[in-house]
Amino acid sequence: MNNINPLYTQYTNLLQKAADINYAAAVLGWDQEVYMPPKGAEFRGRQLATLASQAHEMLTSDAYGNLLNELSKLEGLTDSEKSNVRLSLEDYEKNKKLSPEFVEELSRQQSECFNAWIDARKKNDYSIFAPSLAKMIALKRKQAELYGYKAHPYDTLLDDYEKGATVAMLDPVFAGIKEQLPVLLAKIKAAPQVSNDCFHQNFPKQQQWDFGIEVLKRMGFDFEAGRQDYSEHPFTTSFSPADVRITTRVDEDNYASMLWSCIHEGGHGLYEQGLPGEQYGLPLGSAVSLGIHESQSRLWENCIGRGRDFWTCFYPKLQKYFPQQLRTVSLDTFYKACNRVEPSLIRTEADEVTYHFHVMIRYEIEKALIEGSLDIKDIPGKWNELYDKYLGIKPKDDKTGVLQDVHWSHGSFGYFPTYTLGSFYAAQFFHQAQKDVDGLQAQIVNGELAPLLHWLREKIHRHGRMYNSEELCEQVTGQKLDASYFMRYILDKYSGIYGIS
Amino acid sequence: MNNINPLYTQYTNLLQKAADINYAAAVLGWDQEVYMPPKGAEFRGRQLATLASQAHEMLTSDAYGNLLNELSKLEGLTDSEKSNVRLSLEDYEKNKKLSPEFVEELSRQQSECFNAWIDARKKNDYSIFAPSLAKMIALKRKQAELYGYKAHPYDTLLDDYEKGATVAMLDPVFAGIKEQLPVLLAKIKAAPQVSNDCFHQNFPKQQQWDFGIEVLKRMGFDFEAGRQDYSEHPFTTSFSPADVRITTRVDEDNYASMLWSCIHEGGHGLYEQGLPGEQYGLPLGSAVSLGIHESQSRLWENCIGRGRDFWTCFYPKLQKYFPQQLRTVSLDTFYKACNRVEPSLIRTEADEVTYHFHVMIRYEIEKALIEGSLDIKDIPGKWNELYDKYLGIKPKDDKTGVLQDVHWSHGSFGYFPTYTLGSFYAAQFFHQAQKDVDGLQAQIVNGELAPLLHWLREKIHRHGRMYNSEELCEQVTGQKLDASYFMRYILDKYSGIYGIS
Repeated sequence: MNNINPLYTQYTNLLQKAADINYAAAVLGWDQEVYMPPKGAEFRGRQLATLASQAHEMLTSDAYGNLLNELSKLEGLTDSEKSNVRLSLEDYEKNKKLSPEFVEELSRQQSECFNAWIDARKKNDYSIFAPSLAKMIALKRKQAELYGYKAHPYDTLLDDYEKGATVAMLDPVFAGIKEQLPVLLAKIKAAPQVSNDCFHQNFPKQQQWDFGIEVLKRMGFDFEAGRQDYSEHPFTTSFSPADVRITTRVDEDNYASMLWSCIHEGGHGLYEQGLPGEQYGLPLGSAVSLGIHESQSRLWENCIGRGRDFWTCFYPKLQKYFPQQLRTVSLDTFYKACNRVEPSLIRTEADEVTYHFHVMIRYEIEKALIEGSLDIKDIPGKWNELYDKYLGIKPKDDKTGVLQDVHWSHGSFGYFPTYTLGSFYAAQFFHQAQKDVDGLQAQIVNGELAPLLHWLREKIHRHGRMYNSEELCEQVTGQKLDASYFMRYILDKYSGIYGIS
Repeated sequence: MNNINPLYTQYTNLLQKAADINYAAAVLGWDQEVYMPPKGAEFRGRQLATLASQAHEMLTSDAYGNLLNELSKLEGLTDSEKSNVRLSLEDYEKNKKLSPEFVEELSRQQSECFNAWIDARKKNDYSIFAPSLAKMIALKRKQAELYGYKAHPYDTLLDDYEKGATVAMLDPVFAGIKEQLPVLLAKIKAAPQVSNDCFHQNFPKQQQWDFGIEVLKRMGFDFEAGRQDYSEHPFTTSFSPADVRITTRVDEDNYASMLWSCIHEGGHGLYEQGLPGEQYGLPLGSAVSLGIHESQSRLWENCIGRGRDFWTCFYPKLQKYFPQQLRTVSLDTFYKACNRVEPSLIRTEADEVTYHFHVMIRYEIEKALIEGSLDIKDIPGKWNELYDKYLGIKPKDDKTGVLQDVHWSHGSFGYFPTYTLGSFYAAQFFHQAQKDVDGLQAQIVNGELAPLLHWLREKIHRHGRMYNSEELCEQVTGQKLDASYFMRYILDKYSGIYGIS
């Protein structure tokens, strides 16, 4: 490692300085959601905009482009160095396609659109949001044109969150969901419903917090290199692999709210803590994609945290935290309550089975909006029609319908599908872990989660962006993403819970 | 305000962008002391260094210099605009003297030195801190050379915190202290000691916090534009006048620890909240100097918070928070306890009389370190010798001696003297407020602190850096800083408390 090429050093210096600025912006963003007093918002907005434009300027400068082009022709770099340069050049070329003026316009529209969404939600009135959303969609369509695309304009937006993902790849994934999940859902609906009453009791905040911390520690979350705080909407952010922040929320009358967010964000946090610190700020020190990130949170939340093995160890502990609430609730009842399936209107509260209809509906609407085949004013109609069709329910208002998610107000078109990809990757990875890790099930039953984390670190975390999602999936499991792993996982699990043949 | 010169707009845009970056660094600095997990320190150090060098680069660019020079020759600017340009040009010329490499090195050394100090304190071992401190002092001596000086290298460092302050100006101030305060201290020592036992009981954390918040609210601290958190060492920082952060600490067995830090930092916080938001990032939106900043904290802490008038209103409230602890303690006993004079080792816990010996000792050591007449290894010896000489006591270890303050680890040489200047300004300002504000004493007795805050806002806060310390003092009180106000204040107060003629 001592013969580092001076051009490569110049490159890492520049990229790591841009990372310093982006991580600084992440600290400001974290504080904004967690601790900032309300009047601080205005100046915080301009501070974040300045940091963003500073970093953007560094990463789109001609000098940086020339450096990358020179480096990409250079002999004698190590494989890691080559990967960093290749990925940085791809990022550079994509970034360059957007002018600073366009980036600024987009940023301004994001603020306007977010505020309109907040206002519309408060007043429960989509028509307040629609004009801003229309402008945002016009900008996103323009962005797709600027990026350039072969098959579908939406492909270029997907690529921002999941490099290489396309409509051509996702359509069959969602077709499979459309075909198979309704069959399972119909069977579940026909079976006797399981109760989740045990979650809906009074669970004091402090004990919820304490149990959450215990679980995070057992998962391997390093509290010397991270922390958990409260925020209105749980999220994970990181300022380096040595400083990863997760947040949670507490509803004292619904224990499910904190429990799943805590384990879910913990999974994201473990991925961030597992990225290689020596590649700080470089592609190999960064997460692959949102889909792979989500595979980590969902593997922990669903495959582990909603599994019987996990609760075999943790349920007696949980009962000690909440003796009054859970003394008479059996492990079996609790496990079933964790996995109750019920069509509902709110995506973030959905179970593992119906969740993917929520994503599919957004995916179809986004595609249509970006290709221009759906009008902004027709979104709520389309929304209600699709909810009725797939889940058999219809929102009674905009707040529980089309206004529920923040994503569109941020201009994050192409983001939602990564949630489903995450679940699918999670199932396939977890299947592989069971093959690779000797005695994994017994370890989980004993609350020994370190071997699983070790496997994730080795197979996924430590590589950063060395492989893209597809390559990583092949590396780890020997094959490309295959939806049948998720389908088998979900059929096995819910057949047991609902006594379906 | 509609005919703003386009050059002036260019200037404010640039300066406010630099402010965005510096305020971002302040958020990272705040988080570092308040919430950052320990392993985050290393990357945080480099992030802060990058932000510092980015801002420095903007503020030392030739383009900015040319712009300022052009503006300073321009006709037709308003008085405020002229002041901003003049002060910015002075800042620019000073900043230009430090190279970007030097600024970055200094910032990195600050992080290293801070971590070494933390470690040394934990292990109560100065030798762990000494090597980092030696590097820091070498850098500060280099800084003094780069700035250039006429009389004493320390002058240039003083100037960073208190524009215009010099050894030639401070030596007589401290000579006055050396002459007059020992006489008072001897009389106090000869008089019967007052008891502060009432502070040394068990005061539960939550009630301490709650009373602190009540006092801060009554002082006028706006919790919509700021917040209080815990940190090991209380401090104030701000990210705009609309987002001011103060911190405090709690010792459940010594109520004095939180009470004074809370009111003190509250005083700093009020100054920051009172700066004009429309001058964000510009000299007229910034505090005059550390001495003036400290005058605000000390006026609230000492002139108000340790005064009998204040407690006439607040003591019955305090008794309600702590009925068991304070029911049998009279207002007179409590007031005297607030003002017990006793030579002690820890600066931040010192009373108003002995406090200035602590500052003087640091001042003398700093001067010697910067002029090169004292070696790093001899600091503890010198420290102990001076404590023995002026206060008649010697620290038994490093933690209660030379390692007690964070300042040197930040490279803040020239900072300590502003504490004494602050007390002196506070006494002079408070004397003036009593003349200017009709019925001030009665208002304080009634817990009406708004008129005093209004006076401070009008006379001091709203001007930003329009006037320097000396000019401001003359503006407010009709004369330059005059140490006799402090001496009179302290003699009057302590003669009463200790029954000295």
